[in-house]
Amino acid sequence: MSETRPPFAELLDAATASGAHLCVGLDPSVSALPDVIDPSLSPAERVVVFNKHVVEATLDIAAAFKPNAAFYEALGAAGWDALRRTVGHIHRLAPEIPVILDAKRADIGSTNEGYVHAIFDEVGADAVTVHPYLGEQALRPFLDRPGAGVFVLARTSNPGAGEFQDLRVDGLPLYRYVARRVAGAWSARARLGLVVGATYPRELEEVRADVPPEMPVLIPGVGAQGGDLEAAVRANLEAGSRAFLINVSRGIAGAARGDEFATGARAAARDFDDQIRRAVG
Amino acid sequence: MSETRPPFAELLDAATASGAHLCVGLDPSVSALPDVIDPSLSPAERVVVFNKHVVEATLDIAAAFKPNAAFYEALGAAGWDALRRTVGHIHRLAPEIPVILDAKRADIGSTNEGYVHAIFDEVGADAVTVHPYLGEQALRPFLDRPGAGVFVLARTSNPGAGEFQDLRVDGLPLYRYVARRVAGAWSARARLGLVVGATYPRELEEVRADVPPEMPVLIPGVGAQGGDLEAAVRANLEAGSRAFLINVSRGIAGAARGDEFATGARAAARDFDDQIRRAVG
Repeated sequence: MSETRPPFAELLDAATASGAHLCVGLDPSVSALPDVIDPSLSPAERVVVFNKHVVEATLDIAAAFKPNAAFYEALGAAGWDALRRTVGHIHRLAPEIPVILDAKRADIGSTNEGYVHAIFDEVGADAVTVHPYLGEQALRPFLDRPGAGVFVLARTSNPGAGEFQDLRVDGLPLYRYVARRVAGAWSARARLGLVVGATYPRELEEVRADVPPEMPVLIPGVGAQGGDLEAAVRANLEAGSRAFLINVSRGIAGAARGDEFATGARAAARDFDDQIRRAVG
Repeated sequence: MSETRPPFAELLDAATASGAHLCVGLDPSVSALPDVIDPSLSPAERVVVFNKHVVEATLDIAAAFKPNAAFYEALGAAGWDALRRTVGHIHRLAPEIPVILDAKRADIGSTNEGYVHAIFDEVGADAVTVHPYLGEQALRPFLDRPGAGVFVLARTSNPGAGEFQDLRVDGLPLYRYVARRVAGAWSARARLGLVVGATYPRELEEVRADVPPEMPVLIPGVGAQGGDLEAAVRANLEAGSRAFLINVSRGIAGAARGDEFATGARAAARDFDDQIRRAVG
C-alpha cells in the first residue's frame, strides 16, 4: 500500500507550509465508544466506524493522524485489522495527510525488519515512533526505509520521564544527548524526527534549539495530559522552526460523548488548530 | 486465559530448580519455513504448524519459550492470531513451561494498559520484555500485573548497543544504572527481571553482580549472534545465581532445513542444554 504513497517528508512539509500543525490522535478505547455506534457490531468494527467519523470530521483541519498501536492490539487480531482499515480509510479520504503509527518499537537489527514490514506494508503507515535505547545500528531497518518518517523518543510526556532521561551524560541530560546524536550522527534514508512532550516546555525549548530547524518534532501531551500548547509553539518559533506537530488525542476524539461525538471532535480540533495558528501568529 | 496460569515466578523457579535454563526462541520467518509444511496453507497457518512441531520437539528440554512479536506482526492480523494460537498450544502441551513474549514495549502509563491486555489476556503470555526509557512510573500497568514476569532491557545483544547504554552516569555505564534502579528502586507485583545479551560477557558479569541473585536475567545472543554461552553461565554462578535463562532462537528452530527441521531442532536444543548443564557443573 505504501508503494503508491508520496514520501512522509513531502506530506509533512506541505501540511506545515499551509500552517497546519495539529496531529489528531486516534486512540479509541472500546469502553468509551459512544452508544450511537451500533453496539451490535464487534468491538473492532465499532473502532473502525468511530475512527472513520473522527477522521471525516477533522480531515480539513488535521496536519497528520496518529493512531497509537496499543489501543488496537488490545483487541487482538481483529484490532490489528481495525488499525489497517483505519489507515486505509485515511489514505482514501485524505491522501495528502500523513499517518504516524505511534508504536514505540525497537528491537535488534534483523528483527526490526518484521516491524518495518508490519508498520509500513501491512498497516500502511507513513511514519512511526521508536525507542532510542538500542542505538542507531539496531534501528537501521527503520532508518533505511525510503520515504518513511521515523520519530525517535527524546523526552516523553509522562510523569516520571526524567528517571533516566534526565541523567547527565557528558554534561547534558540524556534526552538532549539522544536528540543531538539523532540529529548530528545518525544517517537515514527515512526522514528523522524527535518526540518531545509538551508537558516539559523547557526541555522542548532546549531540544528544539539543539537540532536543525528542518528536523520535525512530534509533540504529544496537549489536552488530557495538560501540556502547554503556546509554550510548545513558541519553542519552535524561537528556534526558527515550523517543522512541528502538536498531537491531541483524547482532547479531540473524546471531546464529546453520545451522538455529538463527531461534531464535538470537529469543534475541539478547530479550537486546538485556532490556538496553534494564533500562537504562530 | 492467563487467569488460570500459575504465576510466572513459580514456573520459572521450578524450571531453573530442575537445572533447565534453555529458553527456546520462536521467531519464524515465513520465507525460511521448510517446504515440508504444507505450502497450500496460509503463511500464518504454516507458522502455527511450524511452531507446534518445534515446541513438541523441545518441550522436555526447554525452560521457557520466547516468541518475538515482530515475526508475527509482519503477517498482519493473521500473524497476531498465529501468535495467540502458538501460545495456546504451548500452554496445552506443556502447561509448566512459561512463555515470554519478546515484545519490547513501553508507552506512557495509561496507554500501556492496552499492551498489558494484549500481551497477557489476548495472547496469553506469562512474561514480557520492556524498554526502560520512559521510567518506572510509565511501566506501572506492566509492573502492577500480578503473576506476570517483566524483563527490562539493560544491555541488549546487538552490535552498537553501547551507543547509549555505555554512556556514563553517576560513574556507571547506563546499562548498570538501569539494572541497579530496576533491582533497587522499582516496586512491582510482577516478577521483575533484566535482559542482558550473551554477546557482552563482561557487561553481563557486572550486571549479574549488581543485582540480587534471585532476580531473573534473560540472556539472548547465543547461537546465530555468537554470544558466549559458557561465560554467560559462569557470570551467574560466580554471582551465586541460578535465576537465568539462555535464549537460542535461530540456532534451534533453524538448525536443520527440510523435513528434518523438528529432529534438528531437538538435537540442537539437546546440545545447547548439555552445554549449559556442563557449564553449571
